[in-house]
Amino acid sequence: MPNNQPIGGAGLRGQSAGVTSLCTVGVSGTGLTYRGYDITDLAHHAEFEEVAHLLLIGHLPNQAELDNYKTRLIGLRGLPQALKEALELIPADAHPMDVMRTGCSVLGNLEQEQDFSEQGGATERMLALFPAIICYWYRFSHDGVRVDTEDHSEDSIGGYFLKLLTDKAPSELHKKVMHCSLILYAEHEFNASTFAARVCASTLSDLHSCITAAIGTLRGPLHGGANEAAMAMIEDWQTPDEAEANILTMLENKDKIMGFGHAIYRESDPRNALIKHWSKELAEQVGDTQLYAVSERVEAVMKREKGLFCNADFFHASAYHFMDIPTKLFTPIFVMSRLTGWAAHVFEQRANNRIIRPSADYDGPEARDWLPIDKR
Amino acid sequence: MPNNQPIGGAGLRGQSAGVTSLCTVGVSGTGLTYRGYDITDLAHHAEFEEVAHLLLIGHLPNQAELDNYKTRLIGLRGLPQALKEALELIPADAHPMDVMRTGCSVLGNLEQEQDFSEQGGATERMLALFPAIICYWYRFSHDGVRVDTEDHSEDSIGGYFLKLLTDKAPSELHKKVMHCSLILYAEHEFNASTFAARVCASTLSDLHSCITAAIGTLRGPLHGGANEAAMAMIEDWQTPDEAEANILTMLENKDKIMGFGHAIYRESDPRNALIKHWSKELAEQVGDTQLYAVSERVEAVMKREKGLFCNADFFHASAYHFMDIPTKLFTPIFVMSRLTGWAAHVFEQRANNRIIRPSADYDGPEARDWLPIDKR
Repeated sequence: MPNNQPIGGAGLRGQSAGVTSLCTVGVSGTGLTYRGYDITDLAHHAEFEEVAHLLLIGHLPNQAELDNYKTRLIGLRGLPQALKEALELIPADAHPMDVMRTGCSVLGNLEQEQDFSEQGGATERMLALFPAIICYWYRFSHDGVRVDTEDHSEDSIGGYFLKLLTDKAPSELHKKVMHCSLILYAEHEFNASTFAARVCASTLSDLHSCITAAIGTLRGPLHGGANEAAMAMIEDWQTPDEAEANILTMLENKDKIMGFGHAIYRESDPRNALIKHWSKELAEQVGDTQLYAVSERVEAVMKREKGLFCNADFFHASAYHFMDIPTKLFTPIFVMSRLTGWAAHVFEQRANNRIIRPSADYDGPEARDWLPIDKR
Repeated sequence: MPNNQPIGGAGLRGQSAGVTSLCTVGVSGTGLTYRGYDITDLAHHAEFEEVAHLLLIGHLPNQAELDNYKTRLIGLRGLPQALKEALELIPADAHPMDVMRTGCSVLGNLEQEQDFSEQGGATERMLALFPAIICYWYRFSHDGVRVDTEDHSEDSIGGYFLKLLTDKAPSELHKKVMHCSLILYAEHEFNASTFAARVCASTLSDLHSCITAAIGTLRGPLHGGANEAAMAMIEDWQTPDEAEANILTMLENKDKIMGFGHAIYRESDPRNALIKHWSKELAEQVGDTQLYAVSERVEAVMKREKGLFCNADFFHASAYHFMDIPTKLFTPIFVMSRLTGWAAHVFEQRANNRIIRPSADYDGPEARDWLPIDKR
């Protein structure tokens, strides 16, 4: 009989479930570090590809390493024909996260990770392809267009995504925002999707299974869907005063307001100021007089009324919106970014593995005798 | 700063991660109960569909309920055309668990669970379709045959699987073995794949994401792949003496011997005797003079040398083999069965949810200053 230890908190809150050298949350610096580097430094100074290199290869690249890394990722673009055909079978009203999950899963059939020695290459291939998976499906199902996924005109993952989505060369500002956004979402310790990836990895399953599990987990509205939910909320409000009145009503009705608070952070989410800065600059650039002001008011009201702070998701909503990204593609961008953290955690789990197999407290029926069907 | 509790054991072993009323392992009866019923009673007396009803709907069905349930499941057969086309894109050398994972994921695009009120229907659809997903791909990619997935000639999930696989009406003996096998694999508390499904469910993601995550997790050789690995090992040995010599060598080399021991059970796995009975009967029926005898000798040597007992997987290998099931389809059968437990756990998680978000112990670099790229 297992001698279960008591539950520390529902949802394993505050329970350590393993060891990582990738990330701290709420411990040092401005609150989030990747391999010891503060998120604020990374967001101010780095390209996303530098952060991907840091997480996946272990150190910040020098110029030659970064050039080489980006060249390799560019060379890995181009969806396999069978994957394109599979994406064409998915209807326009599918959930974009179902498309990402399926695209990753199909890729695992076509380019199976045969051995863990292939994990680095398999991850780079996914980094190169994920923007194409979502854009190929989106443009085909919505516009009837087969985008050229071998487009090499943009040298960054964020730029490539915007190019495939809009068919136009993205502006320098938009590319900078994408670097910042992808950096902010790249890694966050044992969040639910990362933990799902590690549980999957702990059976020594393949990388595509781990990432597929993580995508499906991120899909849930309590996890990756918050920036979409925030957008759906604020886009209806014309003025800050209207926003304030609505928020107060929602609070009275005890409605859940997405984009606020956090399971770990207590005072603030260090990612908020970083993306808010870009949301403001984008608002000025597009001449917005509504959405950013509404967002700021919502932030102020939530602070005043509930003491709650914006998390990473809230100002992502307006920032993405100002870049003309359809709301339903917000969470797939999160996938393109968090893939780096997920894969780095899978590598860690594999390097020092024990199958993750907890126990449960039983509250079901006592042992009972079999009941033949004619006695039921 | 999170105040992490110490790790109870690597892999959360012995830690309670939640509550369930579905199952006990190593606690009462012969060691495994589903909602209070002993696995031995269930395996001796029930059809798999009765057990599915028990796990998913909550009680053993009376005759009218069982008839109704089976009629409903039969009526849900037939793959959507887009799913057939997606399966046709997957090459013959794909991993069958990648096919199951992808089939489930594609289905989620075509028939999205819009609301948790649809969870029961979505599960029944998967129960009806999973045998067809694997058989459609297998027969198309290996034989160039498009099987008729709307075949209604068999009224059980196990019979339907054998019919699609072999194109012949399965014998009564084979159908009985399938009932037993599917019952034995249906549920097993917080094993890794079930736990992955619950982590995914805890973000309030959809059912197809949860099951896709579970399939990917079951795929790992430390979890679902053990019966295939056992088969690969024993099929090369012509006689019990040869088997014994090889096992002794493997033990000397500290090779991992699949199909023995268990994370929870300490004395024996109650499922072993139940499937071993059928393996023996099948051996007699096919006139086997080799594989069953080899299997028994391996069991005896492992007991004598290491005190280790067969788990559920070991005699499944020979049993499936005697029914002419290709080794690579062993783990997909596990999926058809465990789907019931996975879905029942998702229902439980949803009914009393908190997002599963543990913490980690950090062993990475101390906080460090940003390093400009020309200083690296």
